Amino acid sequence: MTRYQYLASLLEQRIEQGLYQGGERLPSVRALSSEHGVSISTVQQAYHLLEARQLIMPQPRSGYFVAPRKATPPMPGLTRPAQRPVEITQWESVLELFNNAPACNTFNFGGGTPDISQSTMKPLWKALTRLCQHQDQRVLNYGDMYGAPELRAQVARLALDSGCQLTEDDIVITTGCQEALFTAVRAVCQPGDIVALESPTFPGTLQILRGLGIKVIEIPTCAITGISLDALKLALEQWPIKALLLVPTCNNPLGFCMPDEEKQALVTLAQQFDLAIIEDDAYGELVYDYPRARTIKSFDEDGRVLLCSSFSKTLAPGLRVGWIAPGRYLERVIHTKYISTGYTVTHTQLAVAEFIRLGHYQPHLRRMRMQYKYNRDDFTCWIRHYFPCGICVSRPQGGFLMWIELPESFDSLRLNREVRKAGIQIAAGSLFSASGKYRNCLRLNYALPFTDETGTGLRILGETVSRMMGDH
Amino acid sequence: MTRYQYLASLLEQRIEQGLYQGGERLPSVRALSSEHGVSISTVQQAYHLLEARQLIMPQPRSGYFVAPRKATPPMPGLTRPAQRPVEITQWESVLELFNNAPACNTFNFGGGTPDISQSTMKPLWKALTRLCQHQDQRVLNYGDMYGAPELRAQVARLALDSGCQLTEDDIVITTGCQEALFTAVRAVCQPGDIVALESPTFPGTLQILRGLGIKVIEIPTCAITGISLDALKLALEQWPIKALLLVPTCNNPLGFCMPDEEKQALVTLAQQFDLAIIEDDAYGELVYDYPRARTIKSFDEDGRVLLCSSFSKTLAPGLRVGWIAPGRYLERVIHTKYISTGYTVTHTQLAVAEFIRLGHYQPHLRRMRMQYKYNRDDFTCWIRHYFPCGICVSRPQGGFLMWIELPESFDSLRLNREVRKAGIQIAAGSLFSASGKYRNCLRLNYALPFTDETGTGLRILGETVSRMMGDH
Repeated sequence: MTRYQYLASLLEQRIEQGLYQGGERLPSVRALSSEHGVSISTVQQAYHLLEARQLIMPQPRSGYFVAPRKATPPMPGLTRPAQRPVEITQWESVLELFNNAPACNTFNFGGGTPDISQSTMKPLWKALTRLCQHQDQRVLNYGDMYGAPELRAQVARLALDSGCQLTEDDIVITTGCQEALFTAVRAVCQPGDIVALESPTFPGTLQILRGLGIKVIEIPTCAITGISLDALKLALEQWPIKALLLVPTCNNPLGFCMPDEEKQALVTLAQQFDLAIIEDDAYGELVYDYPRARTIKSFDEDGRVLLCSSFSKTLAPGLRVGWIAPGRYLERVIHTKYISTGYTVTHTQLAVAEFIRLGHYQPHLRRMRMQYKYNRDDFTCWIRHYFPCGICVSRPQGGFLMWIELPESFDSLRLNREVRKAGIQIAAGSLFSASGKYRNCLRLNYALPFTDETGTGLRILGETVSRMMGDH
Repeated sequence: MTRYQYLASLLEQRIEQGLYQGGERLPSVRALSSEHGVSISTVQQAYHLLEARQLIMPQPRSGYFVAPRKATPPMPGLTRPAQRPVEITQWESVLELFNNAPACNTFNFGGGTPDISQSTMKPLWKALTRLCQHQDQRVLNYGDMYGAPELRAQVARLALDSGCQLTEDDIVITTGCQEALFTAVRAVCQPGDIVALESPTFPGTLQILRGLGIKVIEIPTCAITGISLDALKLALEQWPIKALLLVPTCNNPLGFCMPDEEKQALVTLAQQFDLAIIEDDAYGELVYDYPRARTIKSFDEDGRVLLCSSFSKTLAPGLRVGWIAPGRYLERVIHTKYISTGYTVTHTQLAVAEFIRLGHYQPHLRRMRMQYKYNRDDFTCWIRHYFPCGICVSRPQGGFLMWIELPESFDSLRLNREVRKAGIQIAAGSLFSASGKYRNCLRLNYALPFTDETGTGLRILGETVSRMMGDH
């Protein structure tokens, strides 16, 4: 974040907190410049940014004033999926998403890719290069089937920050978080079993369950606190549910962080009904607040939680480095790992281990958390500006994914087709449900630094939404 | 291969072919030197090598003579596995093999690792380094789920050499051949189905079938021509077999190459009984004869053959780059790929594509085929020398794996434990059967250049075998 962006976000916070009220005069450029020890032009840039966001208004010869408060779109309410086990049928629309991915030069709001272009990634490039330049033979050889010990040791160390006491022997490195989730589901479920999920749910997870012949029951989920424990308890009393699969921290797609008390209560419930919990923590390190939220795994007493994660969202997805701490299911997980891919690529494992060992990971995370939080606010602001009234927008507590709920009759698959011509892609909400819900929703990726192009993309998107809502 | 090694192998061939008979006087050092245009010391080194291998004997003041012919151990006969579907139960012994792998400094005859140390690999290192040095963003990003188009195009081009007409759209890049086989089995089989296999069979394959709840029927297999089509036909008439899974070219572990007529006949049989054929061609490019043997896939008329391969044996396993041409099962394969790992690591895919595109692959293959063939002869010679009588040894037509059959009562798991102290590991034969066969067999890896240490390893192995056979 540049100096003026930082100043702008500071002022924005003060406005949000009501320190400066609507209609109130803001400090003069000169006063702010001396208060913060920055140049006059920095303050001017900050004010221009806030003006562009319609948070403040200039009055000729009087300075800047706080704009009359425009209503922030409300958060989506508790979701209401079908309250019975269903089979997942869709796949074609997922496949279409991949086969019709927009070309490189377009703006992709649809995927789950983080920003990989920041300078804090440089030491990772160096580590990757060094291993090849020195012709480190480990790069070309089969490694350890559990994963490189160097990396497992670092992962165990990181897990302490989320409250987990793990050793390297508790951890298996996988080909991204996807393989972690796949091995986890295979370890705890048989075809025909029922798994409970948050609703909406990440499509990759739904397809794992579909592929393995597992039925799902989608549980009502709150955009602030996560899965409804009351609804879950009702479902547990009614159906023979084998496992829960959750993204409790920086949820994909809703962005909530489940409170610690709820996580603890969930573990107690799982013990009571003898369930396994598969915890997808892929975005967990990207919680905006410090210190990071605890994992469900950190409340686990008897090895029933399988913690799945990766460096795909925190570093880069192309590395294909994920991991799982499968608790009591370790041997079953290793069997699936052995039969499905055998070994994980060594090169990127060693580079990531080196990157963490040399202390580059935490500064990188701090950098990305700040950027993503800033982007969230920018996106929210521009969506408020360009989108019509009557929508709900999530307020993510971490990560870089935002959920927008449009009126019931809206068709986001059609929206995707309409904006494709402009080189824009979104993730249609219907991908996130097993029971055909969320056609009226969409998920936006806000990872990349905000540019004019981003603004243009959001404008086209908002205008298309408005037009489609008018059509109806 | 050095000059003297080349000369020695030439002379060995002449002896094998009976051009020089047992007891016959060999050409003088001077005569050979002038015949082949090499130095006197090169000829002397070649003669010393052949003497060390006990193929020739020096007679003081008379030169070298062909040693009285020592019998080459016979090839193993047709295998006789259980002729009924069985469930695969073992897994612990496979796990033990991984968890008790000898430390780096020991001699590993047990694994399936190729020699990755030759100079023809240098351009691959360069390609890997270049991508990182230039911070090629594709390295860090999700790529194409089907695999990098550059690489798929090169794979399609290579497939022409084995008689296959493929385009890049017929190919999916996978995390090694293991993922190719895993997706293939999932594409054609359901739990409870029966799959027919060569016997012995690669343990990785057996574990895939075990993990997916599939029964197997092991078909008698000849060490020269492969699976017995007569026995297969009988089994097909008797059992509802869903698919065949074969390693027909440079078989692992027997080393045979199934003749083209048999491959053609197999496809006809598969059509007749409406079977899918999963063809594991991981070692196929390493056939010693040029041009390489055709694949079963090249005889496929209706998309029933799923061709699986990788660069793990021809280049390096740590790259984790495999591929599958799944014929009519493409969409099912992509679904499994999506749910199990999502994407294959991009970096190594791009480096391999570049390595092939720049013309480095064929020279590398020629180099490795020559080395492996040479090593096969060395190994055969030393096994003849150090192992007791009454054993059978395979004569691989490609690859770098050799199968040794010891008397019925022999226990190769015990052998493995005995030689572990000396830092030696072998692959025990029982890993290669679903029905507890081949306890008396073992597989040796002969990929690495022959050194004094190799000789020592084989001597210890032979002596331990002799001692154990005496014990009995």
